[in-house]
Amino acid sequence: MSEELGQQADAIRASFHRQGFMHTLGAELTAVTSGEVHIEVDSREGLTQQHGFLHAGVAMSLVDSACGYAALSRAQPGMEVLTVELKVNLLAPASGDRLRAVGQVLRPGRTLTVCQGDAFMLNGHEEKHIASVLTTMMTAAERN
Amino acid sequence: MSEELGQQADAIRASFHRQGFMHTLGAELTAVTSGEVHIEVDSREGLTQQHGFLHAGVAMSLVDSACGYAALSRAQPGMEVLTVELKVNLLAPASGDRLRAVGQVLRPGRTLTVCQGDAFMLNGHEEKHIASVLTTMMTAAERN
Amino acid sequence: MSEELGQQADAIRASFHRQGFMHTLGAELTAVTSGEVHIEVDSREGLTQQHGFLHAGVAMSLVDSACGYAALSRAQPGMEVLTVELKVNLLAPASGDRLRAVGQVLRPGRTLTVCQGDAFMLNGHEEKHIASVLTTMMTAAERN
Amino acid sequence: MSEELGQQADAIRASFHRQGFMHTLGAELTAVTSGEVHIEVDSREGLTQQHGFLHAGVAMSLVDSACGYAALSRAQPGMEVLTVELKVNLLAPASGDRLRAVGQVLRPGRTLTVCQGDAFMLNGHEEKHIASVLTTMMTAAERN
Repeated sequence: MSEELGQQADAIRASFHRQGFMHTLGAELTAVTSGEVHIEVDSREGLTQQHGFLHAGVAMSLVDSACGYAALSRAQPGMEVLTVELKVNLLAPASGDRLRAVGQVLRPGRTLTVCQGDAFMLNGHEEKHIASVLTTMMTAAERN
Repeated sequence: MSEELGQQADAIRASFHRQGFMHTLGAELTAVTSGEVHIEVDSREGLTQQHGFLHAGVAMSLVDSACGYAALSRAQPGMEVLTVELKVNLLAPASGDRLRAVGQVLRPGRTLTVCQGDAFMLNGHEEKHIASVLTTMMTAAERN
Repeated sequence: MSEELGQQADAIRASFHRQGFMHTLGAELTAVTSGEVHIEVDSREGLTQQHGFLHAGVAMSLVDSACGYAALSRAQPGMEVLTVELKVNLLAPASGDRLRAVGQVLRPGRTLTVCQGDAFMLNGHEEKHIASVLTTMMTAAERN
Repeated sequence: MSEELGQQADAIRASFHRQGFMHTLGAELTAVTSGEVHIEVDSREGLTQQHGFLHAGVAMSLVDSACGYAALSRAQPGMEVLTVELKVNLLAPASGDRLRAVGQVLRPGRTLTVCQGDAFMLNGHEEKHIASVLTTMMTAAERN
């Protein structure tokens, strides 16, 4: 990991831990590399929709954060990232033991970064692709 | 409220209360009419992103559910609704006391129903439009 | 019409006439007001898909331009507009005599402007809503 | 190529040639395999937007058709495909000699097929990724 990514990786970890919502979900930041970030959460009753699968909002929330941090991993130090828009296609029911959200930079830019996101349900050794995301992130100088 | 909507409204309320995730968020179903459903949540620490605003995933989750139930309010009894895809544009930071998600049917269909969603932050008497959503819902016969 | 919109309206008309693709489609700029622009085209064989309806790409192209110019109508003189992303839901087959694309500013911004777009098929006195669009436009200083 | 794809490939070619709009654009169907279809067009004055690049609507139109035919390549004979919704992120200006639109099936389904689309500008031996698309296609029995 380059020193610069080291610095950005620290900024990403610090930002992640300031997110009250990630705590509430029980989400963990499991990988931070240049242009790619993973966030995971274990399935549990408190995250379900009416049929007992994980609520689509859980996958959207984790993919949103993973894509934001993927964009931040490629930004200059001292920048922050805001979600401009996000589109998700749900591919399969979110059943399984654990959800993995993957955010990847598709096209970095000075102001706007386009990211691809994916969500997978992990069940033992199996992995099921449950959501595909295209999203636009905006980078700006941190406000404080 | 027509008798048929009464039946669907009951089904919607029952479905909402089966959603573990809505409990975890602290969300309330505040309006169910034919083709329009509102879901609200009070702001709190456990729903924030890194800058202290509500996480975009909270708005996405509530609008997703509100749009799904708006579609269900126009479906035949015994049907269920699944999200096919959802696109959100975030218009302003989610700061304020309470979030209101509104789902409305834009075009009902036998298999697919297109819905418009909106999220607003309420702050005293003020209301700020923070997110605009276009989403496709699929109706199918309930599986059990 | 304010004098400033007069200036922007002239810029929009000039830009529209530089678009070779709008000529090829036979599209006409039929309304330019602050925050709302209409573009229309008559149905004809050369714009159809395989079932004889207008190709979805025609509606997407006209709504894209209408939304871009709606954003430009609210921008400062000397700015240009680029499409960042666009999402369309197709609501009904594009059958009828004429297509009207309407672009409206939903939330103006210094860098990004979110627009709502709609497409209607006109058939005598009837109007059918065939497409709903959410799109992000970026404004930047003109390059020449 | 399997015999069944041969039959579907014939259906795709026949359908493509019934599209008046593809003729108007000058588009060519350059590859049809199981789950992936390419459509290309040469750059020319009649397809430009106001800055002389290809209009985003051209890329959207070709990717829409390419994704529809990718879905059809995986459908049963006698089915047709309709676009439910489409989202495009524009990644770079569409400058170059020729546009290639690629449609690929991401998740096939009985009723709905999710496709990924991409557009590239070709310039000599160079290829530039200019657009990324996520779209939902609906398959239904042909109506005549």
